[in-house]
Order: sequence, then structure tokens, then C-alpha cells
Amino acid sequence: MKLKHVIESQQFTVPLLMELFERTRQMEKIVARGGTQDYAQKIMASLFYEPSTRTRFSFEAAMCRLGGRVLSTEHARVFSSEIEAEQLEDTIRIISGYSDVIVLRHTEEGGARRAARVSSVPVVNAGDGRGGQHPTQALLDLYTIHRERHSLDGLTIAIVGELDKGRTARSLAYLLSKFERVKIHFVSPPEVQMRQDILDHLDEHDVWYDLSHDVAPIAGEVDVIYQTRIRPERVVDRASLGRYTIDERLLRRMKPDAMVLHPLPRTVEIDKAVDDDPRAMYFKQTTNGLFIRMALLTLLWDEE
Amino acid sequence: MKLKHVIESQQFTVPLLMELFERTRQMEKIVARGGTQDYAQKIMASLFYEPSTRTRFSFEAAMCRLGGRVLSTEHARVFSSEIEAEQLEDTIRIISGYSDVIVLRHTEEGGARRAARVSSVPVVNAGDGRGGQHPTQALLDLYTIHRERHSLDGLTIAIVGELDKGRTARSLAYLLSKFERVKIHFVSPPEVQMRQDILDHLDEHDVWYDLSHDVAPIAGEVDVIYQTRIRPERVVDRASLGRYTIDERLLRRMKPDAMVLHPLPRTVEIDKAVDDDPRAMYFKQTTNGLFIRMALLTLLWDEE
Amino acid sequence: MKLKHVIESQQFTVPLLMELFERTRQMEKIVARGGTQDYAQKIMASLFYEPSTRTRFSFEAAMCRLGGRVLSTEHARVFSSEIEAEQLEDTIRIISGYSDVIVLRHTEEGGARRAARVSSVPVVNAGDGRGGQHPTQALLDLYTIHRERHSLDGLTIAIVGELDKGRTARSLAYLLSKFERVKIHFVSPPEVQMRQDILDHLDEHDVWYDLSHDVAPIAGEVDVIYQTRIRPERVVDRASLGRYTIDERLLRRMKPDAMVLHPLPRTVEIDKAVDDDPRAMYFKQTTNGLFIRMALLTLLWDEE
Repeated sequence: MKLKHVIESQQFTVPLLMELFERTRQMEKIVARGGTQDYAQKIMASLFYEPSTRTRFSFEAAMCRLGGRVLSTEHARVFSSEIEAEQLEDTIRIISGYSDVIVLRHTEEGGARRAARVSSVPVVNAGDGRGGQHPTQALLDLYTIHRERHSLDGLTIAIVGELDKGRTARSLAYLLSKFERVKIHFVSPPEVQMRQDILDHLDEHDVWYDLSHDVAPIAGEVDVIYQTRIRPERVVDRASLGRYTIDERLLRRMKPDAMVLHPLPRTVEIDKAVDDDPRAMYFKQTTNGLFIRMALLTLLWDEE
Repeated sequence: MKLKHVIESQQFTVPLLMELFERTRQMEKIVARGGTQDYAQKIMASLFYEPSTRTRFSFEAAMCRLGGRVLSTEHARVFSSEIEAEQLEDTIRIISGYSDVIVLRHTEEGGARRAARVSSVPVVNAGDGRGGQHPTQALLDLYTIHRERHSLDGLTIAIVGELDKGRTARSLAYLLSKFERVKIHFVSPPEVQMRQDILDHLDEHDVWYDLSHDVAPIAGEVDVIYQTRIRPERVVDRASLGRYTIDERLLRRMKPDAMVLHPLPRTVEIDKAVDDDPRAMYFKQTTNGLFIRMALLTLLWDEE
Repeated sequence: MKLKHVIESQQFTVPLLMELFERTRQMEKIVARGGTQDYAQKIMASLFYEPSTRTRFSFEAAMCRLGGRVLSTEHARVFSSEIEAEQLEDTIRIISGYSDVIVLRHTEEGGARRAARVSSVPVVNAGDGRGGQHPTQALLDLYTIHRERHSLDGLTIAIVGELDKGRTARSLAYLLSKFERVKIHFVSPPEVQMRQDILDHLDEHDVWYDLSHDVAPIAGEVDVIYQTRIRPERVVDRASLGRYTIDERLLRRMKPDAMVLHPLPRTVEIDKAVDDDPRAMYFKQTTNGLFIRMALLTLLWDEE
């Protein structure tokens, strides 16, 4: 299975996901032994057109644990600003002459695809614009569930939050549609609910879902609550915010082997008291991001 | 002697200081031989919420000379600014999953202590707020004196400058109080003299000190002048500034084996003509910072 | 031939250039084999007072391919801004205690020379001010021509663009004057033509040149078109801009073994359709920059 670039989560088939997840488990073991020097001659160019220290550090740490080197910019201004526009292609052509992989966070939707078109080395999309993709986040979310449950078939999940603009929620829904007997509860304030394009996609793939406005009634039946950020200013009925918040009371309703995920950062939607519960998986989730990025890099290189 | 985090200079006992200084001497030798690869599998996350290239480079060079890797941010904006507040703990939890030590420069007093509370790896305070600590600076100051004199007992020192807000002067005074028969002359314009809390601390520990307003009369008797920055705008009697300045005339009054230290950067308080005098130790001092940071890192890891 | 610092292109004699170019060819081969670890104990301090990701990445990639480590700042603010002025010398003294080479991009003409005066390690000028130098750019330009033609003697070249302020065009003209039977056509809008100081220099060295305002008539006779940026707002007769633009029509006039070079970034002066022509060498040119910087670093260290 050829993997040339990582641009969007849709490009991953179920067999490729399973191969990736198996390799990711191996990476956990490699890190536990202190990493490897097998990729000591590889250079990653970490090209962030807007800062995102968390994502950047995750990719760069993945590279370090593989033994490689990193060229890094937290806030790319490759040329003087006057001529910056439309320079992405030239920049990528130049930087692909200096490196073995380019990790790109771009400000515009489609940036990663434009980069891949001209790059002589693999391009990994680390987020391109608000409406764009952030595929490695979706992959680490899915991996975290798979790692605990050993299967994604038959999963019941609540996806909670400001879902209309939720890049990670949308990507996760998309990936879940590839598996069997998945049930998705979309829980959100009515004015920010999941958009029709994703619902249509789920209909086409015969995935069960419903839309609701309170997480409590379904908390007892789900295997996973995938919580995402809610900005209070986007919600009309602020008094209703508690219906989308995870706290100790809600935890008591949940199954003992359920999981709480969150792509982070959070604001008010997960109470800090939840952090100590073994079902709170969001920090484990970020560490899984390290392993999945290591696995992706080696997949890209081993198949060259 | 267990060293888990480096948060404030007070945590260092005399035996721990001596162990640290001995290890620091070994690091000098290791660097002279070109460094070591013994820590090749270690990753340092260099997390600076405000830029300080000098301090950051010193820590990162220490890591490189030990053979390790660095994740670096010069101006951390971990998440979008709207939700930055109160995110320090989550950020540290995430980044401690990617690294083996976190070097933190934070904008608020107490930031390093908050970070240490939630981190799964050692945290080293590289400065937290104006009123906070910068313990590795105090340690390298003390090491520089110890390295030349082989002892801190019986030291006579002038601490000169804007002492009321002098973070390094305060930390140094604190550390010196742990040694025997130390004499401290605090020399400053009256309106910016050393604060009462430090004087009380010295009284409690029976350390001799006095306060004065001219460095010339005592220049001939001190082993060390620890000069710090004076911003002319904070001094009422600008004509008096010369009384706190080190120049060739003052050098002639000093003992031939005395030392001039300065944490740098300097403004007007040390004349450039002093740089070539063998008693000018401030650039040697910054190189000692490299060695002491190497020693601290290995202490943190070797005791895990 | 002793090379202590790299400050300006004038310091390179023809024999030193030939030694550098030979070493650069070796670096191409080393990179093709995946790089070397021979310089694993070296540290480069990459000190950019203004961002230039392209140049910075090129130097840092050179260091990585040699096996070494990098300390990097994209936008140096070494100390708090209030005391930044006139601190360059102190900063360099400090950082040369942490590193084995300093790559400096400074905002003021003469910055690199000031740095070299106080540094205990080699300083490489990566650009100092608008009116200053950027010698490694000139070296990689010259190397690219030499690599294809195997000689610089007898070269006929058109240097095109906004030449009055063209730092790279000026440096290249200077270097070319060291070779035999070189012919230079300076092609530019009349209001931005090459300045008299360079023309005087060429006269002194008996180099043939002329000044003209249209690239088409000479396109058929040149071995190289060295195209540089033209900002339309600096040209009075905008309708004339096409006379300085390289497009497919102009390509058809050029010799089959000619070359099109450009220091990049470009705006409108090279049509994207030119990119696929084998004579378009500007992306190869940037990769040559990697090799020449590797060669320069090893020259600086091997001669220490």
C-alpha cells in the first residue's frame, strides 16, 4: 500500500489504517526502549505558517525519537511579506531540496494539496485553514479508541460540542463511517449542530446516527464520549451549557470501561475533576499522537 | 541526593551545591573533548513564553553537548490566544509526554512551580516573571566564584547596582548565606537599595553586610564585585552614576586576584575598556552557564 | 589557504573558489549517500535578526547533513528591546562560547564584520542589511554556472532586473571580474540600471560590458541569463516590463545549452511555464546552496 503524502483522512482505507495502527504499537515499544537511530540521516522540515506549538512539538518529537533532524519554523515568513502571496509552490520546491519530509501547517484550505503537487519529498498536512483538514489528529483519535477496544466495529460514540465548525469531529465521523455497526450520537446546541454534508455521507454508508441536545440521557450507553470545545459566546442559551459538559456527575452515569476523549485545548467543557478518572484519555491521546506520527513518517519513507 | 525539578535556588543545600560543582568541572572537560553522545536518546522541550535567546541557547547548547535533541519555541503560543489563559497545566501535561525534560521560561511568578506539579518529567525554571526566580543564573554565578577561589567560605563581595529589583543579586545573596564568614557590601543608589526581606534573612543567618553608595572605598578589599545593571532613569541623582560604574580607574584599586562578575546584559555600568582585564570574568561566566546546565540535566536524569 | 570567517564575496580568490567548488562537488556525493556524521560534535548557532526561512533552512540543513547540531532563532531578540542597541558584540562573545560557528543575518550593513571582530568561532555572513553583502548567495550562483560549464572563463552573461539595488547582481558581477574574457550585458529599465561603482570596477579589470533595455536582442548569444526580481512599482514605463521578462518566446531565442538563473523569490519576471524547461536552473541553484554551505562549513573547521 503506497503512501506518498498525508493530505486528508479520507485517503486512508481500512487495511491501511490497520497497518498504520500495528506500526504505531511498535513505535510505543520503540519509545519505551528510548527510541531508535534508524532514521538518523533523515531531515524533517517543519513549516508552520501559523504557530501551533503542541502539534509542532508532537511531529518534531516523533522525528527525534526516530533519530532524525529537524528544521523548524514556528511562524514562517519565507520571503519578505510583499511577495509572500502565491509563493507557496516555490517555497516547497526549494525546501524539498533541503529535507526528506515537509510537515506543513498552512493558513489556507488546500495548502497541503498544493504543496504535495510540487514537492519532491512527502508532504504531511498538519492543518490547512479552518475549513481544511488535520488528518493526523483524526488518526490519533481513532487509534486511541482502537488501542483500548481492539476494534472499531460495533462502536457507540457520542460526539459532543460545537459540531458545525468542528474540524476534528467532522474528520472522525468520516473515518468511523468506514467501519461496521457504528452508532453516532451528535450532541450539540441546536444552533451549532453537525452539518448536513456529513449526515448525508453517513446516510450513504448506512451509519446509524441521531442529533440531540443533552449528553446525560445517552451517557450510560456509549463506549466513547468524544468531547470538543464549546465557546460559550456561540451558544444562544448559555444556561444550557451544562448539558454539554463532562463532570463527575456525568462520569457516574458512564460505563466503567467507557472513554472520554478530547482533541484539546479545552475551555469549560470538561471539569478538571474528571482528569483523575481512569476513563479520561485525553492526555494519553496526545501521547498516542507522538506514536502515530512516528508510524506515519516511517510508512512514508519505507515505501519510497 | 534527589533532584527532581530545578525551581528555585533555595532548594540547593551546600552538599548538593558541591556535588553539582564537581560535576560541572567534569562537564568542562567533556566539552573540551568535543562533548558526549551519552544522552543521545534524551529530548529537551525548550518552552519560552517570552524570548530570551541567550538563556535558551545556553540550555540548548548544553543539551547538544550531551548528545541530546531539542524541541524549541522562542515565543510559545501553544494554543490560539483566546484560550491561552490557565492552559499552562494542560500544556505541560501534553509536552511532558513528548520529552525528557522541560526548560520553562514563563511570564508569571510561580509558573515553574505550577508546571512541576503536573509534569511527568523534570522541569527546569529558566525564569518565571519579574519577581520570580532564575535559579540556574544564581548557580552559575556562584560556580564562577567557587571555580576561581575553590571555596566560598570567607568571601568578601560587593553586590552593586539596582538591587531592589535585582533578581540575580537577590538569589546570589540568598545562596551566599549558606556559607561561612561571608561579608557582603550592597552598593546602590539609595532609592534602589537591597530590600529588607533579604537583609532580614542575612541577619537570621549571621551574615555580615552593610549598605553604601559608592563602590570606590571598598574596591580594594573585596574578592568579587558582582555588578548588575543600572537603568539611569531609575536613579534620582544622575551625576552620582559614576559611583556605581566599573572602569579602569576602579580596576587599579582592586586586588590583583579579584573578579568582576556581571549577569549581562550590561548598559553603562561596566566600561568596555574593562573587558580586556584578566579580572573581568563576565564572558567566562556565561560559558560556565553552559557547563552548569549540562551538570544539572545529568543530575536530574541520573537520579531518576 | 586560510578561511577564518565568511564576510564578503571579495575575500575569495580564484584558487580558493576552485578549492571550494571541488569540495562542493564532494558534498553533493556525500548528500546522495545520505550525509555524514563526521561533524556530529559541532554546533551551529543560527542567529537571524530578521526572518529568512529559506536561507536559514539552507544553512541548518547543511549542518544536519554534516551530522551536526543547530541552535536556532528566527527573529533574535537576545535581550529585552530597551537595551538591544549596541549589544551585538556582547551577544556574539556569549554565543561563541556556546557554538562552533555563528551564522548571522543582521539588519545593519557591517554587522557580520563587527561580529567577526569579537567572535572566538567562525562567523558566516547570511546577509547584513540592504546595502550589505550576502556572500554565500553569490558563491552558489557562481558555483551553479561553473558546475554546468566547468569553467567561468569566456562566459557571456546577461544580468537582468532591478540592478541598482540588486545585492546579488552586484556581488556576482564582482566575482565574475576575477575570470578571463567574461562579457556582461546589464539589462534593466533605465531608471534602475547598474550603478557606476560596479562599472568602474569592471573597467579597472578590463571586463567587457554594456547596458541595454531589452533582453530579447541578446538572448541568442548568452550562456547565462541571470534574472533578478523587478518590482513593477519601481519602473516608470510599466508597458516595457515585458522586455525584462523570461517566457517561452524568449526561451526559443536562447541557445539549447544556456541557463536561466534567479536568486529567488521571483514575482512576475519569470513565467511559470519556464519552470519545466531544462535550461531553468533556479531550483537546482537553491539545492546547490545546500552543498556550497556544507563545503564552506567544513573549510572553516578543517583549517582551524
